[in-house]
Amino acid sequence: MSITVVGSLAFDTVKTPFGSRERMVGGAATHFALAASFFDRVHVVGPVGEDFTDIEMAILSTRATNVDDVERVPGGRTFFWEGEYGWDLNSRETIDTQLNVFEHFDPKLSEASKQCDTLFLANIQPDLQLQVREQCPAARFVALDSMNLWIDIARDALLDVIARVDCLILNDAELRQLTERPNLISAAREVLKWGPSVVVAKQGEYGAALVTADTFFALPAYPLETVVDPTGAGDTFAGGFVGYVTRHLDRPLTSFVFRNAMAYGTALASFNVEKFGTEGVLGLQAAVVRERVEDLQEFTRFDHVDLALERARQPLATSRTDSRSEA
Amino acid sequence: MSITVVGSLAFDTVKTPFGSRERMVGGAATHFALAASFFDRVHVVGPVGEDFTDIEMAILSTRATNVDDVERVPGGRTFFWEGEYGWDLNSRETIDTQLNVFEHFDPKLSEASKQCDTLFLANIQPDLQLQVREQCPAARFVALDSMNLWIDIARDALLDVIARVDCLILNDAELRQLTERPNLISAAREVLKWGPSVVVAKQGEYGAALVTADTFFALPAYPLETVVDPTGAGDTFAGGFVGYVTRHLDRPLTSFVFRNAMAYGTALASFNVEKFGTEGVLGLQAAVVRERVEDLQEFTRFDHVDLALERARQPLATSRTDSRSEA
Repeated sequence: MSITVVGSLAFDTVKTPFGSRERMVGGAATHFALAASFFDRVHVVGPVGEDFTDIEMAILSTRATNVDDVERVPGGRTFFWEGEYGWDLNSRETIDTQLNVFEHFDPKLSEASKQCDTLFLANIQPDLQLQVREQCPAARFVALDSMNLWIDIARDALLDVIARVDCLILNDAELRQLTERPNLISAAREVLKWGPSVVVAKQGEYGAALVTADTFFALPAYPLETVVDPTGAGDTFAGGFVGYVTRHLDRPLTSFVFRNAMAYGTALASFNVEKFGTEGVLGLQAAVVRERVEDLQEFTRFDHVDLALERARQPLATSRTDSRSEA
Repeated sequence: MSITVVGSLAFDTVKTPFGSRERMVGGAATHFALAASFFDRVHVVGPVGEDFTDIEMAILSTRATNVDDVERVPGGRTFFWEGEYGWDLNSRETIDTQLNVFEHFDPKLSEASKQCDTLFLANIQPDLQLQVREQCPAARFVALDSMNLWIDIARDALLDVIARVDCLILNDAELRQLTERPNLISAAREVLKWGPSVVVAKQGEYGAALVTADTFFALPAYPLETVVDPTGAGDTFAGGFVGYVTRHLDRPLTSFVFRNAMAYGTALASFNVEKFGTEGVLGLQAAVVRERVEDLQEFTRFDHVDLALERARQPLATSRTDSRSEA
């Protein structure tokens, strides 16, 4: 099995209440690949500039990720993002965005990338996502992320490509904006009518929820006392999610698979946010990821005992007078 | 066993995107009692005015709730709140608050109310909460709610009473404000140092999280396509939570009990938000509550299969060159 991801490769300058870092390797495709590479071979498609050196390329190649389709544009500069997070890390302000080589990006996939079993269309212009989607006709599971900008300025193109994917992975608020439905469940059900069979709403520190035609599943974020830098958490989640699904493509994609995929995505994202940039997931061992998945199972499990309501089964005084006389 | 609650009894005028209602019976103690009364006998302590008629008193007395300590102040008017909710029901604006009889409320508990096994100090002035706490020395489980107003203007009194309770049930954002810690886990652990052994963070549509010295548990809100009026959801949750705990007071209060308590609180709150005011919980049958608890178990359960990461267990090509030659 193999996974192809198309998306941004970037330098990120980030300031959070816990410190700041300049020009770290980042971008949606990078964070996705670092997580998905735990599960299967990943092929990354995206442009970089001459400032993206072999050191950055080595980070991207972690766990044997294939970078043949990373196009180094002569004379170009890599996509750059600068942002600052607020006190509780729930809000962030973009200080600078430089598209650079992304401005004229025209994705051309090698045969190896085209032959992927699963495809992740990270957050880029919807028409580029569609172009990549069409180059991978054999992909058996295709997931897509997007953002408010494209909902605002390229809604029709976005709807076109959404109709061609199996799974939409979107921020909670953006899902509501896209569907113009304030309620999460209505919003997800609306998307299910458009083509996808799986909708995942990312809810930041509250976790994520999954909706299919016949299932609802929600998982909290992994509880951490120290969250340092949330940049890339959503793409790391997507990498774990799509990675897990990829490994199970030969079986029916049941709710069982998607629930575990959510758990692996959530566990991986927790390592991402504990450190700056790619530091948290880069040298990670599979065993500790697995431990956090087991923790998540424990953090969410309850065994229902319905003894609690037995009082309500008994005949009760229900009028005010009765209750007084009994007191 | 019996439960005493002290808190507001109110008339609420509410406008939501789904309609509006004028002067519905409401208030924290009302919503709490309607939920807690499924589990055990509830005693309500709080003041009302002459405008609170026998009709309202009958609603409060649902499922045999004892209203002997509901003080009808001669010539007084009942506490009044008016609010309007935004598009997605996550934000609300208070249009009017009239304290009325609450302005000079001096809680006096009957012997029956003082002899409670569990006590819920709903959101009122912290010094009144403390006064009630001291009148119930035998209570074996005491929970407390509060709000940003008291954190702002009566922080010391609030800390005094928090030190005297077993469980703090607070909105997520207020827990952070109270502890001046932006991180939920740090904030909860800080409160655990002050006296309580259980902290519950209410997270609105994202559910609730529970933290003790040795447990973390999180549960999403019950997924609903139609949410009509969130007023009272938090107090309904607290009623289910404290009610469930009350029925299990004769056993060790383990994580098992608290997790079920969270589930019953969450299920009951979901009925509250589906209709205006008290309409959703008033005529509710125990069996349908139990069904939603079972649904919640299904919505959150996953059985971990760690097969997924087996690729990472095998020796892998890790350099860029290797990955290329393999592709």
